[in-house]
Amino acid sequence: MTYTLVLLRHGESEWNAKNLFTGWVDVALSEKGVEEAKRGGALLKEAGVTPDILHTSLLRRAIMTANLALDVADLHWIPVKRSWRLNERHYGALQGKDKKQTLEEFGEEQFMLWRRSYDVPPPEIELGSEFSQDSDPRYADAPLIRTEALKLVLDRALPYWESEIVPDLKAGKTVLVAAHGNSLRALVKHLDGVSDEAIAGLNIPTGIPLVYELDEETLAPVKPGGTYLDPEAAKDAIAAVANQGR
Amino acid sequence: MTYTLVLLRHGESEWNAKNLFTGWVDVALSEKGVEEAKRGGALLKEAGVTPDILHTSLLRRAIMTANLALDVADLHWIPVKRSWRLNERHYGALQGKDKKQTLEEFGEEQFMLWRRSYDVPPPEIELGSEFSQDSDPRYADAPLIRTEALKLVLDRALPYWESEIVPDLKAGKTVLVAAHGNSLRALVKHLDGVSDEAIAGLNIPTGIPLVYELDEETLAPVKPGGTYLDPEAAKDAIAAVANQGR
Repeated sequence: MTYTLVLLRHGESEWNAKNLFTGWVDVALSEKGVEEAKRGGALLKEAGVTPDILHTSLLRRAIMTANLALDVADLHWIPVKRSWRLNERHYGALQGKDKKQTLEEFGEEQFMLWRRSYDVPPPEIELGSEFSQDSDPRYADAPLIRTEALKLVLDRALPYWESEIVPDLKAGKTVLVAAHGNSLRALVKHLDGVSDEAIAGLNIPTGIPLVYELDEETLAPVKPGGTYLDPEAAKDAIAAVANQGR
Repeated sequence: MTYTLVLLRHGESEWNAKNLFTGWVDVALSEKGVEEAKRGGALLKEAGVTPDILHTSLLRRAIMTANLALDVADLHWIPVKRSWRLNERHYGALQGKDKKQTLEEFGEEQFMLWRRSYDVPPPEIELGSEFSQDSDPRYADAPLIRTEALKLVLDRALPYWESEIVPDLKAGKTVLVAAHGNSLRALVKHLDGVSDEAIAGLNIPTGIPLVYELDEETLAPVKPGGTYLDPEAAKDAIAAVANQGR
């Protein structure tokens, strides 16, 4: 027997479309993102993959993606749990900044370090500034986060994985996690045992469900990397993500 | 100190618009219903009413109404609980039938008895028929329900009220219940102590939040009947609901 885990990165957001660093800024899906979310639901339905429970971040783009996808899949009624621990990486002082301008201002090396290094976070965001979350009531129970590298995302996502998601899997539930490029990369790093170096090259496309069958004893993926429900579209999208900011 | 409870009946569904008995049939919101839901969220925001937790039925029209309203109110991220115990009244063999045709076929007296009597349920739905829910996996944990009068709705909603909603209220949370004409009538009957006779004349309009302040000791409404966030629109809508099927 295996357990089934489905990862779904939110559809394009208004700031993906504008090529801005988003992080914890709570932007809406773009029209394209809405369509991607619905298509994600259609892919689940076609494949006969039926999540029993949903886990999301506290950010609108992941929540709406799940709502839209599950509605199309006739699974709008399944239970939901949400946590800041599934949020996108906090992009620190880069939140709200244009990716291309940031690349030009700081150069290729620094830009790629902030975007893809495992443990070098961007500069901390100024408290009280426009794109900071320090006064947001939804984070009342979370520590005050001012910037994150991917390592810190994994550090805060892992306790949620262990305490909330693993018990659902072990109860035999098919679990859907609707989250973000970097919180999902962190989970994939953990699941597949990706090295700190190799994770830099791993991108997850928007709106295409990624299905993992996990060994019931070890929770190791039966097939490393899992299976995208639309492998061709995933391949094209992965290439496009890697070229953002160019 | 008082507790705050907000009741929200879903926006117009595709079958409200077609004047069909719906019950547990899982129809979508109409375009008008989508707009009503968004307006419900705007009314919450304008009034500064900020639910801390959402309770919904397992039916799409209530779930989507809550999703849309909370998104507009910037509260899409609050925790959610769902239960079949908040579902609309099961309309038995009337599910899927035209209200006007039913009125003509069975006459005013029988029609009003089925629609508004407290304890006379419509005939039971045939198992396995098009609009029956007997093979729906979402009701795996519920008893097999084939028809309901309002009394039966109250009987199955009350345990959920006591075990799930009251503890949230007593924890000081503002609770939003997004549900249906009859499951909300049942809650209102309980809260306001409406008699079995008087409940027949009580209608709840779609998409207009109804706010109750409840005494912290007795949970009795400080103001019987609560307060609609748009009292004028509520008055007009209540009159329209009462005339359905005419």
